[in-house]
Amino acid sequence: MSLANIKDSEVDIVIGALHSDLTSFMNEWRPIFSRFHLIIVKDPDLKEELRIPEGFNIDVYSKSHIDRVVGSSSSIVFSGYSCRYFGFLVSRKKYIVSIDDDCIPAKDSKGFLVDAVAQHLANLATPATPFFFNTLYDPYREGADFVRGYPFSLRSGVTCALSCGLWLNLADLDAPTQALKPAQRNSRYVDAVMTIPSRAMMPISGINIAFDRGAVGPALLPALKLAGEGNLRWETMEDIWSGMCVKVVCDHLGLGVKSGLPYVWRKDRGSAIESLKKEWEGVKLTEEIVPFFQQVRLPQTAATTEDCILEMATTVKQQLGPSDPVFTRAAEAMVEWVKLWKAVGSGSSPL
Amino acid sequence: MSLANIKDSEVDIVIGALHSDLTSFMNEWRPIFSRFHLIIVKDPDLKEELRIPEGFNIDVYSKSHIDRVVGSSSSIVFSGYSCRYFGFLVSRKKYIVSIDDDCIPAKDSKGFLVDAVAQHLANLATPATPFFFNTLYDPYREGADFVRGYPFSLRSGVTCALSCGLWLNLADLDAPTQALKPAQRNSRYVDAVMTIPSRAMMPISGINIAFDRGAVGPALLPALKLAGEGNLRWETMEDIWSGMCVKVVCDHLGLGVKSGLPYVWRKDRGSAIESLKKEWEGVKLTEEIVPFFQQVRLPQTAATTEDCILEMATTVKQQLGPSDPVFTRAAEAMVEWVKLWKAVGSGSSPL
Repeated sequence: MSLANIKDSEVDIVIGALHSDLTSFMNEWRPIFSRFHLIIVKDPDLKEELRIPEGFNIDVYSKSHIDRVVGSSSSIVFSGYSCRYFGFLVSRKKYIVSIDDDCIPAKDSKGFLVDAVAQHLANLATPATPFFFNTLYDPYREGADFVRGYPFSLRSGVTCALSCGLWLNLADLDAPTQALKPAQRNSRYVDAVMTIPSRAMMPISGINIAFDRGAVGPALLPALKLAGEGNLRWETMEDIWSGMCVKVVCDHLGLGVKSGLPYVWRKDRGSAIESLKKEWEGVKLTEEIVPFFQQVRLPQTAATTEDCILEMATTVKQQLGPSDPVFTRAAEAMVEWVKLWKAVGSGSSPL
Repeated sequence: MSLANIKDSEVDIVIGALHSDLTSFMNEWRPIFSRFHLIIVKDPDLKEELRIPEGFNIDVYSKSHIDRVVGSSSSIVFSGYSCRYFGFLVSRKKYIVSIDDDCIPAKDSKGFLVDAVAQHLANLATPATPFFFNTLYDPYREGADFVRGYPFSLRSGVTCALSCGLWLNLADLDAPTQALKPAQRNSRYVDAVMTIPSRAMMPISGINIAFDRGAVGPALLPALKLAGEGNLRWETMEDIWSGMCVKVVCDHLGLGVKSGLPYVWRKDRGSAIESLKKEWEGVKLTEEIVPFFQQVRLPQTAATTEDCILEMATTVKQQLGPSDPVFTRAAEAMVEWVKLWKAVGSGSSPL
């Protein structure tokens, strides 16, 4: 893996703190995180003081910072998992790696600790190939290449803007599936990274991702907030929405999205049955969201990620708004986010 | 893996014999092949008598059978790797598994022999999911499921019509890549099967495939014959062309294509440098073929695989024909193949 193109100083690791005691989380990640600058954003709903062990280069943001930057009247809500987006906003780095605080480093099939950050940066530093599928997966990995029949003109690939990692142990299932299969754990370590083809849609999870903030930062946004959203992943959809936005933007701008390695190990927590009692809206909303994002096309005039998000917000409001007010609120949050990004996120000086 | 839906008697294993001595090949595959009916088609250019060990249920076809069925004036050439297509034509089974005669069973990452036939049939027996990508790969495998954000309405999937397996040791590279990296061997066993998304194109290799002959049989056809084609895979493009045809047909008819497991072990043979001296046309042709198949769309009236191939043949002749006579010949072979298939391939009685 060649990391020649990405320096440690170009990377922020952003952690949304939904738990007050990060001691064990941070210590597990210490061998991997300690070289990098970290941004920890405390869930504004979390009352207790954060406990963070010594020895890291960290900026911590809490409710007071959020209020100061976005004001309390904003249509953007940074509570729960959405707090991490504040970290994306205030970062001044080219690359972001973001991992949920209930995940620890995974081990590969040989028992070696997986350096998830190094793998994410390798994914982002090497090209993506969205216009033709390579059956031997990532052609830029050591020992791999393009297979016979792959057009030579497409072998230089495009910039990879987003790297989506996966999960061992507790997979990222939705509440109904998790409730139906409470004992199911993911133990299959699939040693592959691949580019998701252009125009193919996928459920991007926010659990374990990295992205080129300079290229697609404004597309990673907290827009879709479920009514009964809690602080368990299967109760949320904010990352699925944001993921469809960023995939559409990448397809439009000719950027790539990779999925596969690295894995993280997700610890068990929460009861899916309890989550189901909250009448999870995700089932219904997904049925409307996916066809929308599959067919949405952006005009040629949308030349930046900000343009693309504003165009999509208008279309969301028109096409999805009438069916559920949650979509109108999402569209408003998208517009608000682009304003915020222009005011704060694209600034060159730290907060 | 549930194979409940596919009986052994519904399967033909088709081997194109490019080598006269199949003793070692057949003995290596004996534990896997012996339950099934086999069709061996001898390369009409091969002079020596075939040597096939005892203990198999086999029908062998040679040049005289081919001449009797298709006549010598046909625009379809069954020499070299194309001989296997004669087996697809004369089979009366619903499913075909076809593996090159320089491949032996692979071992998985734990050292166990891979039953490539069982895995292919599992791929074909379980649905494919071409309309949305599942990040945890095949949701129908044991221990896997659809991830959060996957629309429930798409979870029943569609019929899987084609299963594309992969290769350990000698990967399926083209002649220039193989010549550039003569020592490169594929040792990465990726424990995954995935559906290739609708409208995404891929280089389908004929080395190790299985398909639903009833659904897409007429789309697996010997149409593109290179001028200097030899009997080494990297000298051929016939499967790449056929693969694009079948992918377009599947996308049009709402069928699925899977890629990944099973692996086979490809033995080394031949010199890529010698192949390059034949001035491999593949590089140039690929650049024209891929954009063509990416943009070709079939009319709603094309309701069967035969219809689709005839429509594509017309478009190939119009759009690609003027640039190279090899494409005009391919279009003619496609039309001829559909005629043959109607006369022979869709017949209900054995040859």
